[in-house]
Amino acid sequence: MTQIEAARSGRVTEEVRAAAHQEGISADLLSREIASGHAVICANKNRKDRIPLAIGKGLSTKVNANIGTSRDMLDKGLEIQKAKVAIEAGAHTVMDLSTGGDLAGIRHAIMDVIHVPMGTVPIYEACARAVGKRKSFVELETDEIFEVIEEHALQGVDFVTVHCGVNRKAAAAMEGEGRVLDVVSRGGALTIEWMEFNKAENPLFAHFDRLLDIARKHDLILSLGDGFRPGCLADATDRSQITELVTLGELASRAMDAGVQVIIEGPGHVPLDQVQENIRLQKSLCHGAPFYVLGPLVTDVAAGWDHIAGAIGGALAAWAGADFLCYVTPAEHLKLPDEYDVREGVIASVIAAHAGDLAKGVKGAWERDLAMASARKSLDWETQIKSALDPEKSRRFRESNPPREDEGTCTMCGAFCAIRAVERAKKIREE
Amino acid sequence: MTQIEAARSGRVTEEVRAAAHQEGISADLLSREIASGHAVICANKNRKDRIPLAIGKGLSTKVNANIGTSRDMLDKGLEIQKAKVAIEAGAHTVMDLSTGGDLAGIRHAIMDVIHVPMGTVPIYEACARAVGKRKSFVELETDEIFEVIEEHALQGVDFVTVHCGVNRKAAAAMEGEGRVLDVVSRGGALTIEWMEFNKAENPLFAHFDRLLDIARKHDLILSLGDGFRPGCLADATDRSQITELVTLGELASRAMDAGVQVIIEGPGHVPLDQVQENIRLQKSLCHGAPFYVLGPLVTDVAAGWDHIAGAIGGALAAWAGADFLCYVTPAEHLKLPDEYDVREGVIASVIAAHAGDLAKGVKGAWERDLAMASARKSLDWETQIKSALDPEKSRRFRESNPPREDEGTCTMCGAFCAIRAVERAKKIREE
Repeated sequence: MTQIEAARSGRVTEEVRAAAHQEGISADLLSREIASGHAVICANKNRKDRIPLAIGKGLSTKVNANIGTSRDMLDKGLEIQKAKVAIEAGAHTVMDLSTGGDLAGIRHAIMDVIHVPMGTVPIYEACARAVGKRKSFVELETDEIFEVIEEHALQGVDFVTVHCGVNRKAAAAMEGEGRVLDVVSRGGALTIEWMEFNKAENPLFAHFDRLLDIARKHDLILSLGDGFRPGCLADATDRSQITELVTLGELASRAMDAGVQVIIEGPGHVPLDQVQENIRLQKSLCHGAPFYVLGPLVTDVAAGWDHIAGAIGGALAAWAGADFLCYVTPAEHLKLPDEYDVREGVIASVIAAHAGDLAKGVKGAWERDLAMASARKSLDWETQIKSALDPEKSRRFRESNPPREDEGTCTMCGAFCAIRAVERAKKIREE
Repeated sequence: MTQIEAARSGRVTEEVRAAAHQEGISADLLSREIASGHAVICANKNRKDRIPLAIGKGLSTKVNANIGTSRDMLDKGLEIQKAKVAIEAGAHTVMDLSTGGDLAGIRHAIMDVIHVPMGTVPIYEACARAVGKRKSFVELETDEIFEVIEEHALQGVDFVTVHCGVNRKAAAAMEGEGRVLDVVSRGGALTIEWMEFNKAENPLFAHFDRLLDIARKHDLILSLGDGFRPGCLADATDRSQITELVTLGELASRAMDAGVQVIIEGPGHVPLDQVQENIRLQKSLCHGAPFYVLGPLVTDVAAGWDHIAGAIGGALAAWAGADFLCYVTPAEHLKLPDEYDVREGVIASVIAAHAGDLAKGVKGAWERDLAMASARKSLDWETQIKSALDPEKSRRFRESNPPREDEGTCTMCGAFCAIRAVERAKKIREE
């Protein structure tokens, strides 16, 4: 039985119990959300040492960090380090998007050191294998693509991005409308090239039932990729993006009917005033399936600082109902991220997720901020540091520049401390 | 004649012409917005070498960087450097909030090297003088407070924060409701202490007409401070904050009637779901006067990363109509910012302002993003770097890790480049 089938049969699994405990909600409630497809739980049957994690309605917003080699930057040790840094900084999941080197070996090595759910994009490995066999990706057989997906499932990967909605209809919608930046999703673009070369429909769309069989067998979550996600603000919420989203909604229903857990992926580059509409549209078209957004980036010109553009969009998205934020690092659009970039990206997304959780009233979110506020009131610096999302940086900043005039204050205000002035005012009144 | 009086008389000043040109709008339109009080133009008569700048309705969102010494960190050279860094990073104005050292000298030195509008908080200097005279701030005479304000105006300061709304009524509202963090505005807290000690009304409220006389004489913009701005999410949009805001609206009307330009300051710490309401409330209560917000910070627990929490709130605020964002640096709540912190803070706010401008459709905002999108489509890296908000960091990142396999791509994707795949798909179709 898969998790969704167990939930529907009224059985509360061990994994659901653990994830519900972590969220501070009842296991029955979480089980109901999973049964309805409004939440998913990462629980591939082939992975033993993973901490179960639920993503979806009523739960805290989760953050994913993408790591992985490229053909230009091929250092397994660095990727393991990046995975560790990501989790230390607060990422809930890691996706290994490696495209260079021994991909199964890299995946294995990362899963050996981390215990959070792991995602992949199997089409990258299919593509890398084609190159290894000295042929082009477009010459890949359908069987070869499905083989890679099943291998990932067998290796214990919890969720896979599959670009099932990149079909001929959505491609035609893009052609008809015109775009500034066409397709920026790697899996999406490669699928379009494959369709064009083979004059055939996307195998992951044409043979979706075969994908469902693999997913159900291993309890692998399908994360339906958005190959037509906008790559710039001008392309946002256009005909091809929404045509694909309508298809993803149909496929999501088929997955749920088949007892397969499903997540929907979303944009991308979206102007601030379209972020909330994008979330609402997805929730409506996909019957409440969890939404996993990349950013969204609210401007195209923040290269070097896209983690901040992504945090702005991500916070708004989380508030509007997005369940899962894929981080963006300062290296986005410029290079493969290193450990520094990973840390910056995760923290920015964690702030966005938490801001969204405060606004949508997720259980436990406000307690944290109230603890900080009380510590500030009492000028209790140790509790302030411990209450911060990043205690290490808070401590380092405070200790790098300690106050001299009044140890209870900081070097910003010193004798001008507002808290102290209010304390004095209260004392005057009491006298 | 002040700028607002000139605008009302139908005369388009040289300063308005220059600022309108910079915005790419007609000088007549800007003049009308200034006449109605929906925009202000920084143009203190006593300052000769300042580039005029307009802030308000229909204009691009502006960013202010706070710099200045404290009694613990007293280095004039560092503050001059911080001012330069702020402007290089894109700040439109600088506020010198120095509280330690020779305050007039520091102000003078900063104004000597920068040509953007400058703001101050004169109450800090009044307070510092009291300490210099070995008395407490609360022993200051009303005349001493007004003297400092006039000195700042004479020195060419373009706008001053004056906490006129911190009156006994707003203080009573706070007492009646209770707050987690009382007052976190330094000027606000000192004013409350003064009122409590002297059992008297706030002189800047009681003698507001005297302030108007000074402002009109020098064409000094009054930035009405929000002494009761919330210092934590739990205190947001409460009775004392709104009581003060109602007063600020009344004072703004009096200022406009007197031919004095006025800006309203706003929060602070505000949950994401209350940011837009805060902006709309201000615009309504203050008859469309420009709104100058600090952050807003959408969580209390981002110490060390408050520039990101502030960028999230700032973007949302700018979209909703805030005209002027006061940056927040990573050092906020921990220490006085250094040059690194200033740069990080300004860039984060510039991204927020630009994201807001894109969403509210400010003239010229979209062109910039379209140029970047086109450069990405054509893999034109030089234009991408030049189109970025921070070309220096973009170049540094790209050059630190140049692609080897395909120079046109980057080390993130290399041979997996989506742009390249789409190019190939198009070629296949054309064949």
